[in-house]
Amino acid sequence: MDDLTQTPREIPAKRLTTPTTVSPQLQRSIATLAAAAAAGGGLPVGWMPSTTQEWKAVIAQLDAQAISIAPAIKALFPHSVILRQIAGVTVREITPDSLDPTKAGKLLVHFHGGGYALNSGEASTGEAVLGAHYSGMKVISVDYRTPPDHPFPAAVDDAVAVWKALRAEFPAQALGTFGTSAGGGLTLALALKLRELGEALPGAIALGTPWADLTGASDSYQVNAHVDGVFSTFDGFAKAMAHLYAGTTDVTHPLISPVFADYAGFPPTIFVTGTRDILLSDTVRVYRAMRAAGVTARLEVHEAMSHAEYIYAFDSPESAVAFTDIAEFFDAHLHG
Amino acid sequence: MDDLTQTPREIPAKRLTTPTTVSPQLQRSIATLAAAAAAGGGLPVGWMPSTTQEWKAVIAQLDAQAISIAPAIKALFPHSVILRQIAGVTVREITPDSLDPTKAGKLLVHFHGGGYALNSGEASTGEAVLGAHYSGMKVISVDYRTPPDHPFPAAVDDAVAVWKALRAEFPAQALGTFGTSAGGGLTLALALKLRELGEALPGAIALGTPWADLTGASDSYQVNAHVDGVFSTFDGFAKAMAHLYAGTTDVTHPLISPVFADYAGFPPTIFVTGTRDILLSDTVRVYRAMRAAGVTARLEVHEAMSHAEYIYAFDSPESAVAFTDIAEFFDAHLHG
Repeated sequence: MDDLTQTPREIPAKRLTTPTTVSPQLQRSIATLAAAAAAGGGLPVGWMPSTTQEWKAVIAQLDAQAISIAPAIKALFPHSVILRQIAGVTVREITPDSLDPTKAGKLLVHFHGGGYALNSGEASTGEAVLGAHYSGMKVISVDYRTPPDHPFPAAVDDAVAVWKALRAEFPAQALGTFGTSAGGGLTLALALKLRELGEALPGAIALGTPWADLTGASDSYQVNAHVDGVFSTFDGFAKAMAHLYAGTTDVTHPLISPVFADYAGFPPTIFVTGTRDILLSDTVRVYRAMRAAGVTARLEVHEAMSHAEYIYAFDSPESAVAFTDIAEFFDAHLHG
Repeated sequence: MDDLTQTPREIPAKRLTTPTTVSPQLQRSIATLAAAAAAGGGLPVGWMPSTTQEWKAVIAQLDAQAISIAPAIKALFPHSVILRQIAGVTVREITPDSLDPTKAGKLLVHFHGGGYALNSGEASTGEAVLGAHYSGMKVISVDYRTPPDHPFPAAVDDAVAVWKALRAEFPAQALGTFGTSAGGGLTLALALKLRELGEALPGAIALGTPWADLTGASDSYQVNAHVDGVFSTFDGFAKAMAHLYAGTTDVTHPLISPVFADYAGFPPTIFVTGTRDILLSDTVRVYRAMRAAGVTARLEVHEAMSHAEYIYAFDSPESAVAFTDIAEFFDAHLHG
């Protein structure tokens, strides 16, 4: 490009009010995040761990936050959990009280978010429970290995191992895969890897605001920096997590940054994001790549929603709509 | 809501670079808009006309800009135009050189954008030509009456009059309606008014970043203020246009701010917007309202695109995708 494209666009400082255009529950979530930011909560902007010990300490601290919302989710969305091993990988089998016996031949496979390093173990299942509840289907939530001990491709290897074992019990078109953020990225990486291996792909895929460009080039990294109340900036901690996960592999590898993949032959896929989402562009770019490849794809965007906020504002009608859209998409496209 | 929702979110000043994640043509458009903003181009931020004479002067000035791109559009998208009157309303009948004779039984009806006050006459047809070219269909572009001389409901009345006349020649399901910005709002208002009158609705609708909330409550009015290179801020000139159009009617009237309408029984509708669009929220909110009403709706979002930029960056592959999506949607849903 020529010099013209070097002209930056100056955006003055602004003060965002809580919008009146969303439900009271989502207003409360947005305002709670704004209040936390105003109080200087969360990790310091730009900070990143410098040793493995610091990584493990911050991971434990952040996982404790995710675990703290589990009782409220359990109360609103009753379910049972069985801790299992499948192909040597720890998984949680989640059965919702809303289980629909007519869907017993189908199964959902879930990959949790958290930048590939966070939300393992007991912190991993919030979204899986919501997915199980709204779909009336059983969910296998994969507790894949994470860095710093297990960088790429450990998570992809675990996903493939679980998938192959489940395929002994279910036809591929009866299996749906889903995940948010890094879980969305891993959901994409699994399908890309399966295609590479010549395996059948899932019957349908649901991607919540997938982390798809770990290079940081997406435009919403700059436009929605500080606007997003959940995932506030890429530079600093998130970028450090990207490199922690990639390890010795370049972050442009399509199994790490699936925005760079080709989507020929992909199954029907639904995307969910929000207008304040720092990964709005990651989501839109993968959606457009799929549409360009002729894939049946649907894009759902929610007013004023930050990254993955449909999980945290789980009592909001917007969250119910997001998960109901996903459930209906699986109903339409899974066969088993 | 309680006091918590009064907590604002502070966004520091930022400098947006031209993203590398879009085509060179769209990069050039984004950078050209940034350079114009940096040079202090366009209307002064916050300025608004205070007399009818000032309104007419600024409208003429802005219309001249829209007319100036017509030769380039004509060269890239060859077509012929016939100036006609239908039911006493001036229209332009656009026949693209790409006319597909197998679609002769169908027709598109176009409403231009420009805040209801701008882009009348020779300035009105840029988008109509693109729609005709990519669809291979004839387009009737309605040169509806505008304020200051003709406030609401003149534009809606003109749209209804043209529609009823065309219905003498075409079944409703053979007619598609489309428009961007205020043209999208008017496209919605026409269908809402037809439903009120007990008339058959269009077979399908295409809405480019519709101006649907003239009260200014949409969250993207604050989030994408100054981010959007085409429609930079609501406060000031745009808000003044909203009130100029509404005249003595409240701007919350659903034929003026269709985000407040109910969409039961609406035909299949496709929406197009971009991640930098100041009307991203207007678009998303109407999309969600339609989905909640059970309407078949599709949402298309483009990376780093500002309001209606698919019209101005008409040489970009993103523009081609946007209009091809619309054309395919009309192909799928119009019958004639």
